[in-house]
Amino acid sequence: MTDLGVLDGVTVGVLGGTGAQGRGLALRWAKAGIPVVLGSRDAARAEVAAKELVDLLAEAGTPDAQVSGADNAATAAQATVVLAAIPWDGHAELLASLASELDGKVVIDCVNPIGFGKTGPFPLDVAEGSAAQQAQAVLPGSRVIGAFHNVSAVVLADLSQAEVDTDVLVVGEDRDDTNLVQALADVIPGVRGLFGGRLANAGQVEKLTANLIAVNRRYKTHAGIRITGHGL
Amino acid sequence: MTDLGVLDGVTVGVLGGTGAQGRGLALRWAKAGIPVVLGSRDAARAEVAAKELVDLLAEAGTPDAQVSGADNAATAAQATVVLAAIPWDGHAELLASLASELDGKVVIDCVNPIGFGKTGPFPLDVAEGSAAQQAQAVLPGSRVIGAFHNVSAVVLADLSQAEVDTDVLVVGEDRDDTNLVQALADVIPGVRGLFGGRLANAGQVEKLTANLIAVNRRYKTHAGIRITGHGL
Repeated sequence: MTDLGVLDGVTVGVLGGTGAQGRGLALRWAKAGIPVVLGSRDAARAEVAAKELVDLLAEAGTPDAQVSGADNAATAAQATVVLAAIPWDGHAELLASLASELDGKVVIDCVNPIGFGKTGPFPLDVAEGSAAQQAQAVLPGSRVIGAFHNVSAVVLADLSQAEVDTDVLVVGEDRDDTNLVQALADVIPGVRGLFGGRLANAGQVEKLTANLIAVNRRYKTHAGIRITGHGL
Repeated sequence: MTDLGVLDGVTVGVLGGTGAQGRGLALRWAKAGIPVVLGSRDAARAEVAAKELVDLLAEAGTPDAQVSGADNAATAAQATVVLAAIPWDGHAELLASLASELDGKVVIDCVNPIGFGKTGPFPLDVAEGSAAQQAQAVLPGSRVIGAFHNVSAVVLADLSQAEVDTDVLVVGEDRDDTNLVQALADVIPGVRGLFGGRLANAGQVEKLTANLIAVNRRYKTHAGIRITGHGL
């Protein structure tokens, strides 16, 4: 288990915080006591979404959740760690526009470059190799970590599921940074963060989400992954 | 659980049967009562390896295992289903040379295009998208299925581990074929075969092995994967 003390003083900003993945992770982090800022292009929309999460958590027995809403730039500026949970379409442009607010910070990229065709989901080609590597290319002053790609937004949003049965593969260059992101996985009950390699190995973790969507369709489930192995 | 009756009459040929992955899968299939032909460039070497597996299985309480050895072409000709467990280097050339023997058959590709650098494993670019798609391109008369990429050869070889704690993602176009390959996963105790999408989704399953190697190095284990989800 990762040392959760590394999360002291952390405020997570969620770019794309009104989308399903960002909103679901924000909900679980706020439930765990971590201050969260939901970001959106439209600050008013982010504020409404933040209020909804606070109300939902109060009903669920967490009356003191700290969730606020702001536009994406203010979110990036206020947060100490930022999750990019934004659409693949426009990914590079949005991040590049926030380079100064994100400078010096850990940026977690959970974006999955996936298309949908007549026969199901398929991985999209990415010139940089992965969304995470693209993020690193446009954010040279930030430290990009890939994580939270394979976590079901449906399960995250459903607080009746107290535990989220999945591992999070965390890929990145710096061990302090990957430890921090593993801790952000470990604070969600049921979730375990594992180091999954350097940033060059982000692409297949992103694209594996296409396989999980195929699993969901075939088996009528909301799939996640676990890593097995003696001693894990 | 998949219907194992689809395995009646199946003989599996293992191209690269003297390598770790092919040998390990051959061992487990033969233990489950499936006839296996080990293939190698060198027929004599394959025959020696086959004899070793038969002896190992007899010692382990399976005296009637059916394992023979042959050169790769004879292996492909004798088998009803063929596993390509060959090196990535030379993958297309070897398969293309066996196109007539493999014509009309299911070819399972478990090859992982991965390189190793100073900072660890990383995925290699494949023009066709994946080893499995490359195999399909050079074997237009065969039906290529991707599977068995993420199964630890070390665990497969260790018969003291009665169960192999992993799922096998099976990717391919035809449902009868993916069902057949899922059955070949399910006959190995502990292993579960799951449909994981169309062949266009093979690449990330292959490359995920790089992440598992990184997991192995960090956590001193032999990692596998499980797919989680309600009802699975």
